[in-house]
Amino acid sequence: MDLATTIYTFDLLGVAVFAISGALAAAERRMDILTFVLFGTITGVGGGTIRDLLLNTDQVFWIVDTAYLWVCIGASVATWFLAHRFHSRRRVLLWADAMGLALFCVLGTQKALSWNAPVVVAIGMGMMTASFGSLIRDSLLNRPPVLLGPEIYVTAALLGAASFVLLSHLPVTASLALPVSIAAAFLLRAGALLFDLRLPKYQHEQP
Amino acid sequence: MDLATTIYTFDLLGVAVFAISGALAAAERRMDILTFVLFGTITGVGGGTIRDLLLNTDQVFWIVDTAYLWVCIGASVATWFLAHRFHSRRRVLLWADAMGLALFCVLGTQKALSWNAPVVVAIGMGMMTASFGSLIRDSLLNRPPVLLGPEIYVTAALLGAASFVLLSHLPVTASLALPVSIAAAFLLRAGALLFDLRLPKYQHEQP
Amino acid sequence: MDLATTIYTFDLLGVAVFAISGALAAAERRMDILTFVLFGTITGVGGGTIRDLLLNTDQVFWIVDTAYLWVCIGASVATWFLAHRFHSRRRVLLWADAMGLALFCVLGTQKALSWNAPVVVAIGMGMMTASFGSLIRDSLLNRPPVLLGPEIYVTAALLGAASFVLLSHLPVTASLALPVSIAAAFLLRAGALLFDLRLPKYQHEQP
Repeated sequence: MDLATTIYTFDLLGVAVFAISGALAAAERRMDILTFVLFGTITGVGGGTIRDLLLNTDQVFWIVDTAYLWVCIGASVATWFLAHRFHSRRRVLLWADAMGLALFCVLGTQKALSWNAPVVVAIGMGMMTASFGSLIRDSLLNRPPVLLGPEIYVTAALLGAASFVLLSHLPVTASLALPVSIAAAFLLRAGALLFDLRLPKYQHEQP
Repeated sequence: MDLATTIYTFDLLGVAVFAISGALAAAERRMDILTFVLFGTITGVGGGTIRDLLLNTDQVFWIVDTAYLWVCIGASVATWFLAHRFHSRRRVLLWADAMGLALFCVLGTQKALSWNAPVVVAIGMGMMTASFGSLIRDSLLNRPPVLLGPEIYVTAALLGAASFVLLSHLPVTASLALPVSIAAAFLLRAGALLFDLRLPKYQHEQP
Repeated sequence: MDLATTIYTFDLLGVAVFAISGALAAAERRMDILTFVLFGTITGVGGGTIRDLLLNTDQVFWIVDTAYLWVCIGASVATWFLAHRFHSRRRVLLWADAMGLALFCVLGTQKALSWNAPVVVAIGMGMMTASFGSLIRDSLLNRPPVLLGPEIYVTAALLGAASFVLLSHLPVTASLALPVSIAAAFLLRAGALLFDLRLPKYQHEQP
């Protein structure tokens, strides 16, 4: 699989898992199927849309290629019919969100670098692409934000983005750098969910 | 009335009614008159602004034509002085929101089509234009979102957007297609408010 | 100091104080240091980013000049280590927010005028640049919005923006117009915080 195909596949996968997490959040609020699709789509393409607006690309990705919208619609409808089969919707939401986080922190960084953004901007763009889908979903639905949960989240996005930048500067092919940095971000977030990994929180009491 | 004038009139009307709904939401939170105007304006032009950013138009519509801002300011100030005359502010907000929904789902679709967006993008853009003013208003004010109420909402936006696409492909003049599809969306939302029409909700209990 | 340097200095200062307010809001929610940095950065550059997207500038300011990001990162990390030394974090947040408000309402207006926006758009852009950092911070963190507090807020932004427009039309150098209008906005907001200045609120009861 060449690099462009790899990126495209990962990108569609990231959109799909974030759309599933958006539809599952809609399920918590007892919505109808079309509102499922609306929130699945906003969550699925939200982070990448903000990335493209900030990078001032010619067109937002899902206007150029409508496959992204169909993936969101398909994933949301599938969630409507299949979600009740899972033991815990909350767990599925967290894991779909974790996969989206890992994919988008790296893909956001990669896209920013390909638009010649400076390294600190590229890493920031990766972290934002990964966080914003999640933040928009939880903010619009007025639910406790996954990103503000106790376990490591933003750090995993930073790890993925920074790993990709590092590997891009080494004599490693991008086809290898992509999956390795995605895996790094995912494993850190997965470890955080499974073993309750946390960074120290701000603890000082209000005097 | 030629087509451009019809579109412009409907567009100003949509901005005005959404601005009223934003000002009424500000009334619920006991704001001062300038905060009324700020929230009226954000709600009035918010959906269309996101539409224009996504379509990557040369300039956002209210920068090109400041009439939109004056309409928002006027509608917000008028709401400040007149809102207490209405029997129920909540009902007025819901009906202003319904009119904005119907106008913007069709006008958003029309603008996207005129920028050569694919059909699924145009329909999505119509639904987003109609929903976002409402979502931004309720999210920033931290109030229960109208869009997540029990009655049909997103479906009405889809009906308006899809009707317009359909009529655009028939031998019907756009001057007729616009009001017909706006009326379709409004009647469905109005029916939902009056007769409590709902689509089936996601019902599965968390196991 | 020439005009460009004055603007740049004020701009960095505005970004820094908003970043501090964002990091302090993150402190309220007991976040880890990286989430501090994420929220400090979003709050610091958020208002200006929306301004640049709306004005359709070639590139968002912090992509062109990464100093803004480093200021956000530095201010957030400093807040993590120093915030507990202050008697009341809530007061520091309010005062940092007030400084950011004063700086950004004038700088937003100035940037819009320099892009040939009409006066009403420039004033609106100034008010939005000043308000949005604050709104995004409080909305994403799901905390009571500073902007919706009882004391004068939006009015101070309007005063700063309108003063700058007025002074720009008088035979006054911009190097003088900038600090004077920033001071006007800050003094009004400071007076509001110190002496509990309020505009009349919308008072009508729901009938």
